[in-house]
Amino acid sequence: MADAERKLNNGKSRIDFQTDPSKYRHWKLTVDGDVATLLMDVDEKGTLFEGYELKLNSYDLGVDIELADAIERLRFEHPRVKVILLRSGKPRVFCAGANIRMLAGATHAHKVNFCKFTNETRNGIEDASEASGLFTICVINGTAAGGGYELALAADHIMLIDDGSSAVSLPELPLLAVLPGTGGLTRVTDKRKVRRDRADVFCTTEEGIKGKRAVDWRLVDEVVPGSKLEAVVAERAREFAAKSQRPAAAKGIALTRLRRERSADAVEYGTLSVEFDRPSRLATITLRGPEAPPSPAVEAMVDQGAEFWPLKLARELDDAILDIRANEFDVAAIVFKSSGDPAQVLAYDHFLDANKDHWLAREIRGLWKRALKRIDLTSRSLVALVEPGSCFAGTLAELVFASDRSYMLAPSLPSPASGGGLGRGRDNKPPATLALAAVNFGAYPMSNGLSRLASRFLADPADLDRAKAASGEMLDAEAAQRLGLVTFALDDIDWEDEIRVFLEERASFSADGLTGLEANLRFGGPETMESKIFARLTAWQNWIFQRPNAVGEEGALRRYGTGQKPAFDTRRV
Amino acid sequence: MADAERKLNNGKSRIDFQTDPSKYRHWKLTVDGDVATLLMDVDEKGTLFEGYELKLNSYDLGVDIELADAIERLRFEHPRVKVILLRSGKPRVFCAGANIRMLAGATHAHKVNFCKFTNETRNGIEDASEASGLFTICVINGTAAGGGYELALAADHIMLIDDGSSAVSLPELPLLAVLPGTGGLTRVTDKRKVRRDRADVFCTTEEGIKGKRAVDWRLVDEVVPGSKLEAVVAERAREFAAKSQRPAAAKGIALTRLRRERSADAVEYGTLSVEFDRPSRLATITLRGPEAPPSPAVEAMVDQGAEFWPLKLARELDDAILDIRANEFDVAAIVFKSSGDPAQVLAYDHFLDANKDHWLAREIRGLWKRALKRIDLTSRSLVALVEPGSCFAGTLAELVFASDRSYMLAPSLPSPASGGGLGRGRDNKPPATLALAAVNFGAYPMSNGLSRLASRFLADPADLDRAKAASGEMLDAEAAQRLGLVTFALDDIDWEDEIRVFLEERASFSADGLTGLEANLRFGGPETMESKIFARLTAWQNWIFQRPNAVGEEGALRRYGTGQKPAFDTRRV
Repeated sequence: MADAERKLNNGKSRIDFQTDPSKYRHWKLTVDGDVATLLMDVDEKGTLFEGYELKLNSYDLGVDIELADAIERLRFEHPRVKVILLRSGKPRVFCAGANIRMLAGATHAHKVNFCKFTNETRNGIEDASEASGLFTICVINGTAAGGGYELALAADHIMLIDDGSSAVSLPELPLLAVLPGTGGLTRVTDKRKVRRDRADVFCTTEEGIKGKRAVDWRLVDEVVPGSKLEAVVAERAREFAAKSQRPAAAKGIALTRLRRERSADAVEYGTLSVEFDRPSRLATITLRGPEAPPSPAVEAMVDQGAEFWPLKLARELDDAILDIRANEFDVAAIVFKSSGDPAQVLAYDHFLDANKDHWLAREIRGLWKRALKRIDLTSRSLVALVEPGSCFAGTLAELVFASDRSYMLAPSLPSPASGGGLGRGRDNKPPATLALAAVNFGAYPMSNGLSRLASRFLADPADLDRAKAASGEMLDAEAAQRLGLVTFALDDIDWEDEIRVFLEERASFSADGLTGLEANLRFGGPETMESKIFARLTAWQNWIFQRPNAVGEEGALRRYGTGQKPAFDTRRV
Repeated sequence: MADAERKLNNGKSRIDFQTDPSKYRHWKLTVDGDVATLLMDVDEKGTLFEGYELKLNSYDLGVDIELADAIERLRFEHPRVKVILLRSGKPRVFCAGANIRMLAGATHAHKVNFCKFTNETRNGIEDASEASGLFTICVINGTAAGGGYELALAADHIMLIDDGSSAVSLPELPLLAVLPGTGGLTRVTDKRKVRRDRADVFCTTEEGIKGKRAVDWRLVDEVVPGSKLEAVVAERAREFAAKSQRPAAAKGIALTRLRRERSADAVEYGTLSVEFDRPSRLATITLRGPEAPPSPAVEAMVDQGAEFWPLKLARELDDAILDIRANEFDVAAIVFKSSGDPAQVLAYDHFLDANKDHWLAREIRGLWKRALKRIDLTSRSLVALVEPGSCFAGTLAELVFASDRSYMLAPSLPSPASGGGLGRGRDNKPPATLALAAVNFGAYPMSNGLSRLASRFLADPADLDRAKAASGEMLDAEAAQRLGLVTFALDDIDWEDEIRVFLEERASFSADGLTGLEANLRFGGPETMESKIFARLTAWQNWIFQRPNAVGEEGALRRYGTGQKPAFDTRRV
């Protein structure tokens, strides 16, 4: 399960991504008018796994799960908050980065997953700024080293106390023989646009850079003497708040705890089910469409809050994906199915389109955008099965386009033995349909900046226009195939065998080979800072996380803090 | 040296990148008017290393060195050639890709270097098309598998014989648990823009795709029945030739054999020297400027041919870099120095600017572009030392901007003990200067599509304008520093110590960590298909080349052809 080689500190067998402020051990979230303070005050003993302590505000995945939760809650529960002050609760230290002993003892799989989630959380901080006008100001009151500085890099504005000693640094390479793997290198070159030779100096200088040079080199936005710090922080908060369009009067909704019922081979959520077929190394996620169209009044959406179908489904889907990623390493493929009425799904999409300027509608769309990006970046083969009775329409159709492959059942002619009418299958469900809506053409960009359909139709923009023209139609398998929306349309006779053979074959391939293949094939077209982080930087970090110089018995990660120097293979490759 | 774990087949101790058609064992180059045929007919016994045979037109680095040489010669020796027909000399097989036994037995370092060079060669085929109008038509007469199809992907036009069996395929993942690592995945998604789900099917289908489906899926440009093949090939050659601007009447120049004198710790070329300080893990390359300005007549350049200073230096520099890459794995850093008169270097740059429409001037600039890109992609720390008597001007200044760091000596006040006059150092050399020219602002784009200076000044385009305005000036250390052109300007007192400490520190860092760090910091800004190949794809392939599923004792690469199935770790990471 979670990580066979280590024990979770809470005695449980799975890493859980659900939390809430009442359970936080590492962060204090306070709200004062339109300014929230997110105080990092890591509990040394509150580790995710046994075997290390979180000294000096260092973090592990457990600390980051709380951070991700806090950002999410600020978006939904506190719509009036315009500025987050990201600060440390410890004197003279902001954050020492990812805990080194945790990393040294972690499996390769956990290291990779940990970095992926922390990257997503930092991207989420930037997304809150861009998409919601929820700005982050990072106040560095001491050392911000490694992942600590990488966290600061996600903020809109970095303030560093000018006390002659506080510095920002990325000491990973000199200290640990690994990269700053949580976006740091890419944000230094592409977000803060630090000159490359200065970036080289910075990333190889263990003690980091402080004071005026940190500003001159664009590593921080300003340095402030301790005596003036609080006054300047308050001033900056006012300045950023003035730029925000977040609503002054809106009341938030509560992100209530997800209800999940877990059995040995299944998890039952309110709007979806996950079934594990472990011998076949499959997880099947079946999403359930809404039972009725949305109430036309926007207030009803706010009243329903976390029970509002698109929000509930996005949260549950995101949790299901995170659970598989962190706890089910043997799952080779995730199969997406759905059941429900596609017209009702479209009705919700139309409702959100019609209310797109309402803060809550915007946040729900934003959550879907992030959940879908997380799926794109999930290193499992993704397969969509469009069957009779399914509801892959609008937002849900994105799962078909996020998949590495999709199969759609073509209606077969009714046979005398079948009970179904024309176009209905044997079980009397409506024939498989796929339906597009406006939401498929820009609301959910991938990390490459394009919609999934634009990425799909890179070769010929006319294909994208044809798909757009078919928006709102209930497309049968033949139409979906003709428009290039599904990989294969199969009839009843071939369906089961073809899919079984495909899934068996998929599970027989090398897990690593598939991860690399999918990471390349899923992201055609342009690259953005975000996609560079997940591609160039992450892939190199994953490589280094395999190399003896870092993780071998004599490597830097293992020997850190032992007093013994690491022994390196000196060959440059 | 070359690869301590394997013996070169020719009994020598170093891999040599110099060859010429009289020595080719694997390729036949024939020229007929404006069409050249490059026939791949691999000699099974002509392997680079001992221990395998190159069956079915499979290749190793030795085969690719000949291919790279042939393309280079077509550019310089055959300026009238407009179309290359890339064909196989074997019946019913085009090319089976990289030799699997070679890969299975290769060190990680060799695998990485092999892929890098083959990538550069394929990029070179595309560059010949884009920059010189030398188009490639690939004629696939049988199986084009893996690297065989990746070679075809570099062509402008891919023809596949329609014989019911000939197919293109990328079977690396199903067969070997590795990626098609020579640009294949990126060219499928970004050059040929194959729909991602079809790309997924293609890359997991061992037997590949043939006939009409190969065209429909954009994998090839046309399928042609065997009976019509030669006629259609001739027609396509005429069509592409008609689009080429290559000169109809120009006479080529001979790329004469480079003269190199090698001793234990040095290599002496005509225009540069390489010195190895092996205990310090350094290679110092000292480039020598021209002794006189170019003759103003363009005919003189053609007459001098391979002796023309910029061409000679580019070829020798490229060879020196390749030699270090393939044979000197323990070199941590390459230090660039130069000696000569910067005004003479600028005179050559002005000459090439003035004759930029002459085919040979264009080819020389193109060779510099490619040689500089190769330096950008060389996984050694790059350092430029701008000292008194150096000539880092125009084209040579690119080495300063390609470096991870640069140091420039600031003139110190003359002391009574020194023999030099004002601003001259103790050895009476002219003070260190750096000079920019038009060539620094676009002639040599990096793989990200930007000039090195534009990449350097991503933060503020005004910095680029300021540098441009200083073109032609002989900049002293203070001016160069003020313009942001060098990392550090140091005076005499600090110079030696600072550089020694820096180089010692650099050599003490993890080799892998530095490779990953530099691969990220060197390429800020946009990504192109080329940079995606070297970043996303290559980094993932390097990771997979470390994973037991591929390279372990029970991995697919080791077990291929043994009759034993590989045993995989099934965890998805």
